[in-house]
This record gives sequence, C-alpha cells and structure tokens, in this order.
Amino acid sequence: MTDTRSARVVVIGGGFGGLETVSHLKHQPVQILLLDRKNHHTFQPLLYQVATAGLSPAEIAAPLRSIVSKQKNTEVLLAEVTGFDLARKIVHTVDAEIEYDYLVVAAGARHSYFAHDEWEPLAPGLKTVEDALEIRRRVLLAFEEAERQAALHGHHQDITFAIVGGGPTGVELAGTISEVARTSLPRDFRNIDPTHTRVILIEAGPRVLAAFPEDLSASAEQQLHKLGVEVRTSTMVTQILPHEIHMGDVVLPTSVTLWAAGVFASPLGRALSEQVDRAGRVPVQPDLTLPNHPEVFVIGDLATIKNPDGKPVPGVAPAAMQMGRFVAKTISDDLAHRPRTNFVYNDKGNLATIGRNAAVAQFPGFKLTGYFAWLSWLFIHILFLIGFRNRLLVMIEWAWSYLTYKRSARLITDEVGRLREQRSSPDSHNAETPPVEVIERRSA
Amino acid sequence: MTDTRSARVVVIGGGFGGLETVSHLKHQPVQILLLDRKNHHTFQPLLYQVATAGLSPAEIAAPLRSIVSKQKNTEVLLAEVTGFDLARKIVHTVDAEIEYDYLVVAAGARHSYFAHDEWEPLAPGLKTVEDALEIRRRVLLAFEEAERQAALHGHHQDITFAIVGGGPTGVELAGTISEVARTSLPRDFRNIDPTHTRVILIEAGPRVLAAFPEDLSASAEQQLHKLGVEVRTSTMVTQILPHEIHMGDVVLPTSVTLWAAGVFASPLGRALSEQVDRAGRVPVQPDLTLPNHPEVFVIGDLATIKNPDGKPVPGVAPAAMQMGRFVAKTISDDLAHRPRTNFVYNDKGNLATIGRNAAVAQFPGFKLTGYFAWLSWLFIHILFLIGFRNRLLVMIEWAWSYLTYKRSARLITDEVGRLREQRSSPDSHNAETPPVEVIERRSA
Repeated sequence: MTDTRSARVVVIGGGFGGLETVSHLKHQPVQILLLDRKNHHTFQPLLYQVATAGLSPAEIAAPLRSIVSKQKNTEVLLAEVTGFDLARKIVHTVDAEIEYDYLVVAAGARHSYFAHDEWEPLAPGLKTVEDALEIRRRVLLAFEEAERQAALHGHHQDITFAIVGGGPTGVELAGTISEVARTSLPRDFRNIDPTHTRVILIEAGPRVLAAFPEDLSASAEQQLHKLGVEVRTSTMVTQILPHEIHMGDVVLPTSVTLWAAGVFASPLGRALSEQVDRAGRVPVQPDLTLPNHPEVFVIGDLATIKNPDGKPVPGVAPAAMQMGRFVAKTISDDLAHRPRTNFVYNDKGNLATIGRNAAVAQFPGFKLTGYFAWLSWLFIHILFLIGFRNRLLVMIEWAWSYLTYKRSARLITDEVGRLREQRSSPDSHNAETPPVEVIERRSA
Repeated sequence: MTDTRSARVVVIGGGFGGLETVSHLKHQPVQILLLDRKNHHTFQPLLYQVATAGLSPAEIAAPLRSIVSKQKNTEVLLAEVTGFDLARKIVHTVDAEIEYDYLVVAAGARHSYFAHDEWEPLAPGLKTVEDALEIRRRVLLAFEEAERQAALHGHHQDITFAIVGGGPTGVELAGTISEVARTSLPRDFRNIDPTHTRVILIEAGPRVLAAFPEDLSASAEQQLHKLGVEVRTSTMVTQILPHEIHMGDVVLPTSVTLWAAGVFASPLGRALSEQVDRAGRVPVQPDLTLPNHPEVFVIGDLATIKNPDGKPVPGVAPAAMQMGRFVAKTISDDLAHRPRTNFVYNDKGNLATIGRNAAVAQFPGFKLTGYFAWLSWLFIHILFLIGFRNRLLVMIEWAWSYLTYKRSARLITDEVGRLREQRSSPDSHNAETPPVEVIERRSA
C-alpha cells in the first residue's frame, strides 16, 4: 500500500460488519463510500419482534445516512452492485463504475432453500424488514381467517404454524408465536381459542440450537415445550405445499409455514472468488483479504475463515463487528506503515431468546437459562441497538408488552382482497398483487 | 322497532364513525358485529406524519380487535362487503350473508381523480397506511436518486414535489415535506442541498383551506411561504405524467406528485341508494337513516346531510364521531321505546396543521394562527389518539423530532431494484413489482 492521503474506501453493505468498518475509520484520512441496496441498517436480531408484531420497523432500523451523518469522511449511496473488476479496482453498479483503493465487501447472506426455490413463496424467511412484515401479515391473517370461518360457518380449520429450522431464528419465531397465541390474542377473539394454536418447530439435526452446548439445547427444548411449542428434531422436511408440509411420509396440514433453515451468501461472493464454499462464502486470508488482493476485504456472513484454534468463525453479529473493526485497524495500519496482523475471533458468548422469560446464554465460564438468560439477552440487545431514540422506544414497547401481554404492532398492512385471493388460490402467495381497489371512482 | 333483547347491529367500517357507534352501544342489550376490510383503525389525521417519516404506522393505527377487546357484546370480522339486501336485512360479503336488525354503514371515502383514474399510480393520495408508506417511499427515494446522480455524475435534476389540492391534507403534506427537506435532511446528504427542494401546492380554487374563513386561508398561505412552499391558487392541473404535470400551458417537471384534491365515497353508497350526490354520498334523513329504512344508518364521509341552519355537515372526523354517537343513542332510544330525535352537528372548531409551529385554528368565538394554533392541534390530536401507549409514543416521537429536527421513520421499505426500474421506465409506478431477488440460491 502506498501512503495515499485520502485513500478511497468503498464499503458494500450497511450491516453490522460494514458499519463497524466505517465507524472505526472515522478519524483516518480516507474517503469512505458506503453502498447499500437499502437506505437503512436493519438490526437483524430483533427482526423476529417485527415479525411477531411486538415492534415497528422504524424501531429496529435506522437510515444509514443518519447513522453516519456526523462522519464527514463518509458518503452513503443507494446502489445495487453488480460485479467487480478487481484488476482495475472498480465496482460495477447498475449504471456507474466506482473506483476504490480499498474494497470491503460485507454483503451478507440470504435464505437458502436447498435447491427448492419454489418453497420460498410458501415459506418466507426472515432477513429483511420486508420479510418480517410479510411474516407478520401471514401470522395475523391465519387467526383472522379462522375467526371468520368460525363466526360465519360455526367451525374452523386448526391453526398450525410450522417453522422449519431449529437455529436461533427458528427458535425465537416458534417461541414468540406460541407465546403471542397463548397470551396476547385470546381476549381479542370471540369464536376461536388461540391457545389451541399448534406451533411446530422442525429441525433436521438431532437438537435445536446446535451451535450451543448440549445441555443448553436441552434446556431450550424444555423452555419451548413450556411455551407450547412442539419440537421435532431429526426430522427432514421433504415437501412444502400451500397448506401442508411433508416430513417423509408424515403430512402436516399447516396454516403458515416459515423458513429458518439455511442461508446462502450474497452472489457477490462468487463475483469475487471461484473458491466459494457450499454456502456461497468466500474463503479469506488471515487478514480477511482475497488472495493476491490485499486491498479487498470480505467480512461477515459472506466470508469463511477459521480461528487459529481451527474452529470456524460463526456467522453471527459479534463476529461481523469484530471483522469490521479489524478491517478498519488494518487499513489504518497500512496508512501508518505498520505491518498487518491476523484476525482472531474473540468469542464473548452466545445468546438465543425463546420467549417471555425464556432464553439460553453461554458466556466464557458460565451458562444461563430461563429468566436470567432472557434478561441478559434483553439488556445486550437494547445496548447494541443503534440510536438513543430506538433504545428508549424499544424499552417502552417491551415494558408495555411485558406488563400488559399486548403486542402493539398487530397491523395487517395489505388489503383484505388478498385474503380472499389466498383462499381461492392458495398457491398465489408469491404474486405481489396490487391492493384490491374496492372504491370505484367517477367524475365528480 | 320491536323490543328485541339482543338486536343484531352490524357496523361496516372501523373508522371514527363506526367505532363511536360501537363504543356507545357498550351497555345496550345488542349484539354488535363490526366488519372492516382492514384489521386496524387508522387515525387518519396523523397519516401525513407516516407519509413524511415522522411516525410509524403502529403508532397511529390500532387493531380493531384490541380496541373493542373488553366490549363483550362486540365481535370483529375482517370481511369485504359486496352489497346489501335491504328488504331481507342482509349484508353480502365475499363468501357469506350476514343478517342484521340494525345496519350502520360507515365505509368512508377514498380519493377521486375526477375521471382521470390513470393519474392514480402517478399521484398517490393519502387515505390508508399503505398510501402513507408509498408516499414516504417516493419522497425519500427522490432525495436518494438526486444524491446518487450528483455523486456519480456530478449533477442532478431539481427535486420538485407537486401537491395537487389545497385542503387540509394538501397543506399539511406540502408544509411538512418542505420542512423536512429544509431541516431534517440537509446534514445527511453530501452532494445535494435538500434546502433547494421545491414544494409546490396547487389549488384549483381561489384559496387554500377553503373551509376556513378567508383570513385564516391567508395566514395559512403565509405560513406555507415561510416554510418554503410555493402556493399556486386558481390553478387547474390538466395533465399528470410520470415526471411532469401540466397546468394549462404551463408544464412543471416534477420528482413526485401527490394527490389531495378530491374524495369519492365508498361504492357501498350506491349499493344503498340511487340518489347519491356527485361525490358518491348518500342523502340521509334527519335521523341519519335511509328513507323507508329506519333500521339502516349511513354516517361519516359516506353520508350527506344539512344542519338545520342549512349548512352541510362537513366530512371531518368530529362530524363522523358525533354521527356515531347519535346512532348509538337512537338505537338505545328505540330499545327503550323513546322517540327518535334529529341529528344536529355541533361545530366545535376546525384545525389544520401546516408544519413546525405552523397551523390555523378556528374555534367558536376566536381564531388562532401559528404557534398557538399548532399547540392546540398537537394537544387535541394526542388526546384523541386511541390507546395510552400510542399517546405516549407519539408524544416522545414528537418531542424527539421537535428538539432534534430528526425524522425517525425514514425507511424505504422496498428493494433498490425498484429504484432502478423507475429510472429505466418512469411510468411503471403502478406495477407492484416483487422485490428484486439479487441473491441466487443453489443446493447447499
């Protein structure tokens, strides 16, 4: 690296990794350009709260521009990156080429349906605000539809939610949906009993939360049971249809199916490297760069690297943030002619929330389950939320919902026409239909 | 009316009129069924705050079920009403017939494009949460697009918002968008100067806020000028195209056009009566019923009636609420064998907000403009918001935004692919495109 007074750093992706890179370069003599397809950072660990009507999108997402507003060496652009010319040090976007001295690719991952892309419209995953709103809509509509059937026809189909995948996202969705059905909704319905809702969590492996020690997995499973969730481990989902799922020979009728079973890295990974792993992740050098490209960093869920002890660095927010800080430090080292160092992931613990007073937590040296794990989870997540306003509002919303058992964001923001359409054509989930216009107009 | 111990009251529409009817029948021996196409009540007077990124939908909307949760004589159903059989006392919905003893139709109104329905996708109006989110998306994208152009190509097109219609909605949208452009956004953009944003309010009549006295209209126009809005009165919009509007021979290039020029009543009005007026409203008897149908009430924006003094009752929330209470009283009178009375609208005043510290207010006996009008507006609107939690959160949001000049809900919840699409095909606004899926998947 030569000493450039204002090296141009292009960061792709405003998630945990990208934002940490940017903020830790605040005082460096660099020009930073942050590119993202969305105008906001999403605090993904709380997305399940939006999906389960506990929080509003604006409480867990913040405009990237506002976040870096005071950082004078940084610009934000809404742009879609289409590829790279690594030799010429250029990022291709839809309608422009952008030059860089340093490139930091932190484009993350999305769901993977394991060669069953046709399942996506039938079983949405949870990665974006839009995903969360779609899940919220489907979950709430399932209860509305049952109530409608019961009120008009005297009976209704069972309400069954199937959640595929027993990792942290599947566990928190299953636990929270079951909790909402059993505590928030019953008083609001007259013809159905939401406490009879079935929530089934299906995991292909032998236990939920496989990244945790076995005793915490067992505790999580117990806590899920207490919240009313049926857990089926060592069970493979073989088919997803509009209102049923197959697990081998077992067919389960479902109201709503949700997907939390796998992720696949951004296709930008393959634009960077031909060596991506089976999850689309780019293998990086110990300094998180591409081989032969010390100026190109790949971090977060898009990268795969092992710690010196041989354990792979997990695809979690703390790892992405540590990588982001490492990249900022490495660029600073370059600029100061200091030698580079190697990235080491420092595992400070692992938390997973399950529902009210229910969570598991693994810290170096000790473990927690239940209420205290849940309190730790709450505290840490409010602490890391971006923006004082969000922290305050989320605390109020949680206190409110903890004391009253109410979920405040139970809005179905779509037209009921869609409900009708789903009834008549259950496999039309994926069609983004325009709202049905019931009001006719005429010259006035 | 005969003395039915549990007369069945069907209320269509969970707006101001419908909800007041329901809540004032709380202690009557009736069975109430509230039908709505949406699962939530929308506090329409604050929708412009959602459209301008100041509030989140869940802060101004509340699930109908939660609102009537404790009212044991009331059920809520998500349903789309398709018509009536008044002779058989039946409401038709998409897939069921519902019987009633009393029917209260409070289905409201939507935008009217005056025989130019093709303008709707080019100039959205503001009646629902979905409308507000669409306006928010377009307004925020206009700034993002200009910043992108300026950053990548060194220049950008002027940012111009045209708001058609100088009633309360047009005035508050114009004032607030101009205020946001001049106070909230400048610090966040590096390549454009949002304070140069043009906001043009176009009114066909001779003055804005025609329902107010002339001096208040004049004051509103002055306050709009102070906030940077250009007001064009006595100006007819003759054509709306994707990026320009025509006012006779004058052509104005626009970034975003918004529609606040007219409303047309729900088509349910025409299903009830052949005598609807030019705005689709149903003329009702002095007791708000249909002629020859003392059991069928039509209220709110769907009804047209004159006060005893000959002045038409305005289509505002207080009028709808008074009508709702009157209907509840009339049904109670029937049940108690008391004679019916006539509806009289009690005009307690009229407020319109314009922007920060800017509003006009007309109360019986006195008028206010500017800061004190704005304070009254704020106070009254927080007071009438449904739900303690909403009141608290909205107060916090407003205090936050008043002190910091920040807008907290600046989320563009759609994919940037849409931005690209709009650039390449500017007249594709109306196509509800599915989010662009950039992440490819494969077997993992």
